[in-house]
Amino acid sequence: MDNQGRIELAVIGAGYWGPNLVRNFTASGAAVVTHLCDLDLARATKVAAPYPAIQTTSDYQAVLASGVDAVAIATPVRTHFPLAKQALLAGKHVLVEKPLAWSVAEGEELVALAAERGRVLMCDHTFCYTGAVRKMREVVHSGELGDVLYFDSVRVNLGLIQSDVNVLWDLAPHDLSILDYVLPPHLRPVAVSAQGVDAVGTGFASVAYLTLHFDKPIIANVHANWLSPVKVRMTLVGGTKKMLVWDDNEPSEKVRIYDKGIEVGDQDPNRVRVSYRHGACFIPVLDSTEALARMAREFCTAITQGRAPETDGAAGLRVLRALEAANRSLESGGVRIDLG
Amino acid sequence: MDNQGRIELAVIGAGYWGPNLVRNFTASGAAVVTHLCDLDLARATKVAAPYPAIQTTSDYQAVLASGVDAVAIATPVRTHFPLAKQALLAGKHVLVEKPLAWSVAEGEELVALAAERGRVLMCDHTFCYTGAVRKMREVVHSGELGDVLYFDSVRVNLGLIQSDVNVLWDLAPHDLSILDYVLPPHLRPVAVSAQGVDAVGTGFASVAYLTLHFDKPIIANVHANWLSPVKVRMTLVGGTKKMLVWDDNEPSEKVRIYDKGIEVGDQDPNRVRVSYRHGACFIPVLDSTEALARMAREFCTAITQGRAPETDGAAGLRVLRALEAANRSLESGGVRIDLG
Amino acid sequence: MDNQGRIELAVIGAGYWGPNLVRNFTASGAAVVTHLCDLDLARATKVAAPYPAIQTTSDYQAVLASGVDAVAIATPVRTHFPLAKQALLAGKHVLVEKPLAWSVAEGEELVALAAERGRVLMCDHTFCYTGAVRKMREVVHSGELGDVLYFDSVRVNLGLIQSDVNVLWDLAPHDLSILDYVLPPHLRPVAVSAQGVDAVGTGFASVAYLTLHFDKPIIANVHANWLSPVKVRMTLVGGTKKMLVWDDNEPSEKVRIYDKGIEVGDQDPNRVRVSYRHGACFIPVLDSTEALARMAREFCTAITQGRAPETDGAAGLRVLRALEAANRSLESGGVRIDLG
Amino acid sequence: MDNQGRIELAVIGAGYWGPNLVRNFTASGAAVVTHLCDLDLARATKVAAPYPAIQTTSDYQAVLASGVDAVAIATPVRTHFPLAKQALLAGKHVLVEKPLAWSVAEGEELVALAAERGRVLMCDHTFCYTGAVRKMREVVHSGELGDVLYFDSVRVNLGLIQSDVNVLWDLAPHDLSILDYVLPPHLRPVAVSAQGVDAVGTGFASVAYLTLHFDKPIIANVHANWLSPVKVRMTLVGGTKKMLVWDDNEPSEKVRIYDKGIEVGDQDPNRVRVSYRHGACFIPVLDSTEALARMAREFCTAITQGRAPETDGAAGLRVLRALEAANRSLESGGVRIDLG
Repeated sequence: MDNQGRIELAVIGAGYWGPNLVRNFTASGAAVVTHLCDLDLARATKVAAPYPAIQTTSDYQAVLASGVDAVAIATPVRTHFPLAKQALLAGKHVLVEKPLAWSVAEGEELVALAAERGRVLMCDHTFCYTGAVRKMREVVHSGELGDVLYFDSVRVNLGLIQSDVNVLWDLAPHDLSILDYVLPPHLRPVAVSAQGVDAVGTGFASVAYLTLHFDKPIIANVHANWLSPVKVRMTLVGGTKKMLVWDDNEPSEKVRIYDKGIEVGDQDPNRVRVSYRHGACFIPVLDSTEALARMAREFCTAITQGRAPETDGAAGLRVLRALEAANRSLESGGVRIDLG
Repeated sequence: MDNQGRIELAVIGAGYWGPNLVRNFTASGAAVVTHLCDLDLARATKVAAPYPAIQTTSDYQAVLASGVDAVAIATPVRTHFPLAKQALLAGKHVLVEKPLAWSVAEGEELVALAAERGRVLMCDHTFCYTGAVRKMREVVHSGELGDVLYFDSVRVNLGLIQSDVNVLWDLAPHDLSILDYVLPPHLRPVAVSAQGVDAVGTGFASVAYLTLHFDKPIIANVHANWLSPVKVRMTLVGGTKKMLVWDDNEPSEKVRIYDKGIEVGDQDPNRVRVSYRHGACFIPVLDSTEALARMAREFCTAITQGRAPETDGAAGLRVLRALEAANRSLESGGVRIDLG
Repeated sequence: MDNQGRIELAVIGAGYWGPNLVRNFTASGAAVVTHLCDLDLARATKVAAPYPAIQTTSDYQAVLASGVDAVAIATPVRTHFPLAKQALLAGKHVLVEKPLAWSVAEGEELVALAAERGRVLMCDHTFCYTGAVRKMREVVHSGELGDVLYFDSVRVNLGLIQSDVNVLWDLAPHDLSILDYVLPPHLRPVAVSAQGVDAVGTGFASVAYLTLHFDKPIIANVHANWLSPVKVRMTLVGGTKKMLVWDDNEPSEKVRIYDKGIEVGDQDPNRVRVSYRHGACFIPVLDSTEALARMAREFCTAITQGRAPETDGAAGLRVLRALEAANRSLESGGVRIDLG
Repeated sequence: MDNQGRIELAVIGAGYWGPNLVRNFTASGAAVVTHLCDLDLARATKVAAPYPAIQTTSDYQAVLASGVDAVAIATPVRTHFPLAKQALLAGKHVLVEKPLAWSVAEGEELVALAAERGRVLMCDHTFCYTGAVRKMREVVHSGELGDVLYFDSVRVNLGLIQSDVNVLWDLAPHDLSILDYVLPPHLRPVAVSAQGVDAVGTGFASVAYLTLHFDKPIIANVHANWLSPVKVRMTLVGGTKKMLVWDDNEPSEKVRIYDKGIEVGDQDPNRVRVSYRHGACFIPVLDSTEALARMAREFCTAITQGRAPETDGAAGLRVLRALEAANRSLESGGVRIDLG
């Protein structure tokens, strides 16, 4: 830390996301960004221009050898593991972009290593730091919805097709991390199955459906699609008492809580009695703090307080397990894969 | 036929749908409804009140023995087969509400019998007679979308829970019949898989996802849900050239055709080149003829012209095959079931 | 009344609206429709077909001479006055479609006559009997919005152009009657001004704006337009504490109450301090009773209880005064006209 | 100009808008920002930090004495006139934020002075440089809509209340400049009237309606409101052939062109025959260039080419005339004010 108690942080990767990390950690007041590291030094220099105090470098080892407390890794996924592992071995706290690593085995090794070395390992599940998702979590955890019955998430758009991964790997980390964050800990999926099609011939599914199975009568589903003419980002959460809709296309009224539901009365063998409740709808005010700013603060606070952050390595690993299982299910034509 | 060349028709069943059939066949001018038959004679009498020419009866055999040309069956699904079979054996043309029958075996027998006797067998897939679905078919069949890549249909609402069937059996016949009607005949699903959950304890899934597999790189999916706080009825159809959205919640601008797409260029082993086209959107005018009126006319015209109607028994049977396979998949935890 | 205590009612006019009155009064159980009168007897006979107990006639005097308690007048506006006057003189209670009469002078005579004869005179301001407008009234009257600051109503569509009146006369009675019903009685407009243009050459404005002035810092405005490509029916009501939006295009979530507002702090001569409150939104459940059914019951109940109905002749007259003043303002290029 | 042919520009004012001008002129490549001038030098220094080549100063005279070709004035409205006048007198080209000046007299003097000195005087009507408004202009000017019948613009929100001007002065410059830009030059308003209410006690109207009158059967109207719980930014333009809707709340499908209309047939004295056309809707692709970037380029190009820019001083003056007349109308209770 510097003499003002701020975390000294190196940002690794000056591509798409790195500049956002630089900006938000700097603005947080809880960290001081001392280094920006990228193999393309010119790019790092350009990104760092408005921040005279940032040193730019292409030498990761030098960053690790410096006195920084922590590194924030925003590099291609395949490099997450070696970079994060080296940082943990060097005693640094580590923030990694999602997904945590390229494989579950890698993710497990990072989580174990962080535990062993007593370092904070955090995965940047940015959506979990938005006002909308935090409100969803608050509502679900409070019991206001009753028991959760289903979670349905649609994330479709005319999207940037990735050539080396399928659409679930690209988009579903958002939905999986949100599901993990919003549902209470006793509700974790136990298996997944996935259906998809390689509609544009890249060798990977560009339209896919992921189902998460539980050991309770709950179902979760994600529709991820790079080929939709319209952008839909809508999540439904049904509960025994109330139901919730999150429509991220709405500029401000993103989360609606419906006092609607179904009650099934005493059953005799021949007949089910169902009653319907069509009550009011409530649209809460959402905290409008920028998600990345809140994420940055959470990382710093977790380090300072020596506690696990909200979206810690374990959460990142759970998301990764579901993704890897989804890939196996896709490859095998939709077979159900246990999450072990 | 009567002396004006109109089909003489008996409507069987005076419950929810029967009165609509009476009204629309009468208004069509192509048929004259001579009988309304229901086990509950009082109900039939009440429904027939504004139509002095309609005889009401609870005796189906008497109807078959009369000179009617055709029967329109709007009774509980389990009775479709015996009623339709008797009518075909009595030489009547038959219209049946969807789904065609309770099992594929029953459906096959009806289709075979109609062929053998040279009678029209039609399934009332009402949505196929709406202006929106007909426009979708026209656009897809014309090749305007290019090759179809996917078909995604969401049909969710706080719906009337059925106690003896699952939500797919209740709602998916709409989507399956639309899919069957809209896609060209060389694109037929070859297998299905289904995921669902019995969220309210009726013994049947109330939230379910049905995937249809093809022997081409196409995927179709249906989300059917009785427990949604909001009503969504939205279908996306992606093609290699254009894409289409049908939002049935829109009062008039239901179908939108997007000049959007993705083109994948020549591939070298290491890189996929993708280009995106974000063109204009076109919202065509839809024919606003009432769907049921058009369906009624189609049945009469098919009889008069001695040809198969648009949604004939074979179409009804294809829908039934997918439904039955979906049930088997649901019961076996999502296993893929071939459509034989 | 008949021997079951039901009002005996004659419906006058079998055109567009009359059949709705017949159906709803019959269904109400509070009235029995005994006559349907129209100069076009064939039309009346056709409309009355499903109601064997209704006598059809083209002789209005015979209706008045019969024992009916009340008449419901759904004829062209220019005939409202003579028909209603004769009925009142014959001792009948009278329901008139909106607007009450063709001129304020006529309306005043009807109101005075009804008072003199002790008969119920009611104007069918149907919107005031919808769940949405009743909820608005309840919210405004309860003080939940604080003091009302403005009322803005947009009613535009590609509408049926009337050839003998302007668009305000056709559409604004809805907005004016709703305003009259929703605002508390101490808030009545004192003057109006209107702007418009005869855009299609009928001799009357087809696009118009009506402003209502008050003797308090409140403003109300109506945009009425027959030439809009889209249908908008949206009313905003701003208050010092909360604000309300009624969007009649919404299928069910029509009324939203926003806990939003502005507070102006102590002012010094040089600076205004304003604080903004961006609170939650609440969407209440609306009573879904058909408006016309509720209106029919209100007319019958007012007769039975000998009290003024909710939208009585006085309310109809206030609407008429605003309309007539709007016409004068339109003709004089927008001059402000006092409501006297 | 510098040796690369770029306009040398000083930005005056480092408040809300100045930084946007600095960024966009710099990015345009057509100008080089040499000075940023603000009475609050610290603020100017902070804004200029990422631009090492910009000199900051609080001395406007020094700026004018420098070799800059042009100044861009983004200061409080009351200072527009003295600053712009001095700049023109010093031979500089001038860009002024909207509105052009505090009074018509001031505006006229600036326009005359620019003409006399042969300098470019431009008003930053930013909306006129958006893809949506440019498409509207293109459609209207092409004659695709036929003759324009009306222009209706709603701009309401829970807005930042200004304490020294009314809501028309704050918001209507957008609508007035758009109207001026979109309508062909032979369609200019000849008079205005305005209605409003000082709903929150600032001494100025916070809810207002502005009507523009023409010497043809056209009407234009603006609803400006700081007290709306919802943000609406919707413009309707009706024509004899087609109609257009611009909904600025839509993320991408902002402009829709409806092939809808009304045709009035040959009239006999007793009857108007109207036919309705309900055709398709077309949603064009909009140019997504940032408006301010395009505005910056237009200013530079106009200087280089020695021509009037699109939103020149004359356009700014027409907007100002309407605003000043609207103020007079508001103060006099809605009297119609000729635009002279």
